Amino acid sequence: MKKSLKQIMGSGLSISLLALSVAGVASAAETTATTPAAPAAPAAAQSKNLIVLIGDGMGPAEVTAARYYSKKFLNKDRLELDGGYYVGKATTYSQAGPYTSESGAVTDSAAAGTAFSTGNKTYNNAISVSNGDVAKPFASVVEAAMKQGKATGLVTTDSIVGATPAVWASHVRQRSNQNAIASQYLTSGVNVLFGGGKVNFVTKDDKGKRTDKNIIPDFEAKGYKTAYDKNGLDAIPATAGNALGLFALNEIPYVLDRDASTPSLPQLTQKALDLLSQNKNGFVLMVEQGRIDHSGHANDLPANIQEMLELDATFKTLVDFAKKDGNTSVVVTADHETGGLSLGINNVYELNVDLFNKQKHSYEYLDAILKAAQTADDVRKIVADNIGFTDLSDEEIALILKGDGSSYGRAGGYNAVVSKRLAVGWTGHGHTGVDVGVWAYGPIASLVKGDVDNTDIAKSGAKVIGADLAAATKELQDKYLYPLFKVTRDNKTLFTAKSLAEALDIKVTWDEATKSVVLAKDSQKLTVLVETGAVTENGAASTIAANVDNGKLYLPLEAFNKLTGKSFTWDSVNERIVKN
Amino acid sequence: MKKSLKQIMGSGLSISLLALSVAGVASAAETTATTPAAPAAPAAAQSKNLIVLIGDGMGPAEVTAARYYSKKFLNKDRLELDGGYYVGKATTYSQAGPYTSESGAVTDSAAAGTAFSTGNKTYNNAISVSNGDVAKPFASVVEAAMKQGKATGLVTTDSIVGATPAVWASHVRQRSNQNAIASQYLTSGVNVLFGGGKVNFVTKDDKGKRTDKNIIPDFEAKGYKTAYDKNGLDAIPATAGNALGLFALNEIPYVLDRDASTPSLPQLTQKALDLLSQNKNGFVLMVEQGRIDHSGHANDLPANIQEMLELDATFKTLVDFAKKDGNTSVVVTADHETGGLSLGINNVYELNVDLFNKQKHSYEYLDAILKAAQTADDVRKIVADNIGFTDLSDEEIALILKGDGSSYGRAGGYNAVVSKRLAVGWTGHGHTGVDVGVWAYGPIASLVKGDVDNTDIAKSGAKVIGADLAAATKELQDKYLYPLFKVTRDNKTLFTAKSLAEALDIKVTWDEATKSVVLAKDSQKLTVLVETGAVTENGAASTIAANVDNGKLYLPLEAFNKLTGKSFTWDSVNERIVKN
Repeated sequence: MKKSLKQIMGSGLSISLLALSVAGVASAAETTATTPAAPAAPAAAQSKNLIVLIGDGMGPAEVTAARYYSKKFLNKDRLELDGGYYVGKATTYSQAGPYTSESGAVTDSAAAGTAFSTGNKTYNNAISVSNGDVAKPFASVVEAAMKQGKATGLVTTDSIVGATPAVWASHVRQRSNQNAIASQYLTSGVNVLFGGGKVNFVTKDDKGKRTDKNIIPDFEAKGYKTAYDKNGLDAIPATAGNALGLFALNEIPYVLDRDASTPSLPQLTQKALDLLSQNKNGFVLMVEQGRIDHSGHANDLPANIQEMLELDATFKTLVDFAKKDGNTSVVVTADHETGGLSLGINNVYELNVDLFNKQKHSYEYLDAILKAAQTADDVRKIVADNIGFTDLSDEEIALILKGDGSSYGRAGGYNAVVSKRLAVGWTGHGHTGVDVGVWAYGPIASLVKGDVDNTDIAKSGAKVIGADLAAATKELQDKYLYPLFKVTRDNKTLFTAKSLAEALDIKVTWDEATKSVVLAKDSQKLTVLVETGAVTENGAASTIAANVDNGKLYLPLEAFNKLTGKSFTWDSVNERIVKN
Repeated sequence: MKKSLKQIMGSGLSISLLALSVAGVASAAETTATTPAAPAAPAAAQSKNLIVLIGDGMGPAEVTAARYYSKKFLNKDRLELDGGYYVGKATTYSQAGPYTSESGAVTDSAAAGTAFSTGNKTYNNAISVSNGDVAKPFASVVEAAMKQGKATGLVTTDSIVGATPAVWASHVRQRSNQNAIASQYLTSGVNVLFGGGKVNFVTKDDKGKRTDKNIIPDFEAKGYKTAYDKNGLDAIPATAGNALGLFALNEIPYVLDRDASTPSLPQLTQKALDLLSQNKNGFVLMVEQGRIDHSGHANDLPANIQEMLELDATFKTLVDFAKKDGNTSVVVTADHETGGLSLGINNVYELNVDLFNKQKHSYEYLDAILKAAQTADDVRKIVADNIGFTDLSDEEIALILKGDGSSYGRAGGYNAVVSKRLAVGWTGHGHTGVDVGVWAYGPIASLVKGDVDNTDIAKSGAKVIGADLAAATKELQDKYLYPLFKVTRDNKTLFTAKSLAEALDIKVTWDEATKSVVLAKDSQKLTVLVETGAVTENGAASTIAANVDNGKLYLPLEAFNKLTGKSFTWDSVNERIVKN
């Protein structure tokens, strides 16, 4: 059994964990290639606008389940997605890498997002940076499109700093570094940012998670109109240019749990289209239905179906625009499946579709209510009120009170009871590795048909609008490096000497006679006596402090600046070296 | 919870069960339409030959799992299927109907097979007959192609009288009536029949299940060359015309369990191509990899992958032929997914792909060995020998000894242990309702792309070769009716009066004054006094014996012959009325 990402990563552990993990995992990742995307020669554009719609966690079974609902309750024989847009399927695997999977067979949203936004594979957890000890940034289609003068936008029902939007306009080694992602958005140039995740824009004075300051005024200073609810969204004029909408502290509530103050994804999408389509050079818009994934993690099918149907309605909004516009490509895919949903359990050749619409609220809404339950009768009442089951067995009540053994607790028990009655199964609370569907409208359709990889979404998207991913990536890589590092107790930031030296073309040799590591570039030479950590600089004693930890040599950035003659700086918020 | 098909149907219960089920289920099915396929006007053919390859139980996750194996162990970055042939996906739902599902959301192989062979939806269990109390036969593309003078063949690793081959050349109300299916093959005109299932061709003297006689000599008398092993297959000359190959009493062993005497599916397929391609008018060939499904039912992923890879190799054989031939369409799909396979369990973002090739034999081979185990050490040795796990926990051993609670017993426990170590999950031992993939080569590709229904496979197949499904169906429906019936203790066959009368345009009325049912057509009239069952024929006492059972009136065929003036006969083997 491998450890789960959640077990290993936790939250809020970013820097200390990186420090811990350097010795343990660095060597495994060292051989992994960091090749950027194959140069996509900027060909003649076939579409002025590109729209990418992501159903996070939307595996094959999630699509079929939503269709059964539509047929039964919406009097629609098919989904909007089914209307002739299905063109193929995509592989989703990520790369083996630090913190995560040994096989890369099951991706997370960060690696999958990096693939479909930049055209490059990477490790689970990476936000548009490469695998390896010294990662390099990869530019996304959004970033490349900005160089063409196009408007860009990111819209989601998840936090706007969640992995799926983040990969399009930020670069960090760890997806959990969400404050950095918010900060990078400020300088990204993205015009429209709509989602949840206000906590990463404000300090604790505003229920936020930032320790520096509230950065919303900085967005306003750059001309972003802001909105926090449906009325605020409606008030943004189509000519605003830039807009930042933060409609929840974290995720936007599930469809089942929303009130009228919360805009729907089609509404957010329509506003984004209104704003972005003002740009004469065209636009790139990424829209994510982010909570198909969350309800999949929780194994709540009735909530999952409503999120799927919201994606489907959003697709209609997008295709209606594209058809009217006549110069827009739309592509839809998923990052991965979530939960291992199967439309059938045990040996029952049946789904209880008639129960798919009975749930009033999601498990998330119910969570606190279930936690407060004291007796079996309390549980009976809560479940009857929420989904109309009035005949819970003692076994079902016990499962709800005890929880399903996962972090979802009683809500997990509730979802297990409901799933069984619906006759659907799940194989866990994580992601799974099945291929995902690809749907498309417009010229991009012929580029993503058949069997593709998720990296083909980015490559085809760039191609169809004539954006130059390779040039945008080169520009980023000339500027930033994302090395492994550790922070010492006296707050010094140190880097693994060997891997960073190699990334900077510094020669590293071992002098057996003196038991020293020798780093050399041009006429500069640093020698580190490993036993004491003493450093000599071109033969003379140096003030540079080396550190040997668990057999690995660490040096401060100063050492590398001496060797290269550069003035690299360390950006501790974004955990990257700034080269110029 | 609904009862499973297996629970309800059992095996060998066909006639007695039908009798029991008449009263209970007849009314539910009465309103279901029995419309044949929409007339496919015989257009100009685009292909001379049509090949349909079915992966029974091949859902999306099964395909992905096989690809991971190929990448890891076969040094192939993709499957043969992945080589540009994927064109879309198909819905698989069946109709609600007797014995089975209330929703039809999860199909069995019979209903799915009827859909993709004839273009018509029906109930789970039906072999190319319609839904309803008085079912009508639907012609398959194979049957329609014979009318064009084309050669036809059915090849499978399952029993040749299993549902997937059966739907192409036989018609019965219940898939379990496999002796009838074998008998219908004899008169079907199908040229090549390769698979397992010898038990349904021979009597118990030859370990068979027939009570009438060994029918293999009847095939030989019709010019079929016979074969029972690889050598026998090789000995069939390409010019044989007709060939019957029965390579196992039941299913052909799993790939993992075969010896050299058993031909592989690519070998069977190549021989079928050699035989059928002699016909100048072209051919239709159906090839099924039938044991992806069986290993899915059992939840044995290592066996499942090998069956998937055999399908993939078979696909290569077929496409190689089609490319060389230049006048052949190939289409590949599945009937449904089996087992609810998910490539991921719990919250582990990982698959242990490195273990996918460690199993020497399938659960089926292991079954008797596991049953004989006496001690924990016996289990340890069996598992270590078969898959190399030398560190079984007490919990794992207990699960194997106790079984997984299904009919798979200890083998089921073994598969559960292996699946958990591979980090894959299953949601049961039955089918699931997820959409399945569609792959194609040749002119049919453009007809089955995007979102299709499984019925579109048959309609497109007929269209591409210019076969007339509607005409072939009409011919069958003019000849046969498949009514519900019951057999009395004194061995009389009786039919539900109302539904059969309606099917024969006989007017049925209720006379409240005399408490009688009146059946009338033209000048003929039968009156049945329901209290006594006494029948009068045009006013005179009749020898016809009516039967009222649980409020339902039953009459013998004689009654309907009197009313219609016809001489219909009852074919008790095939459980159908022969009209002419």
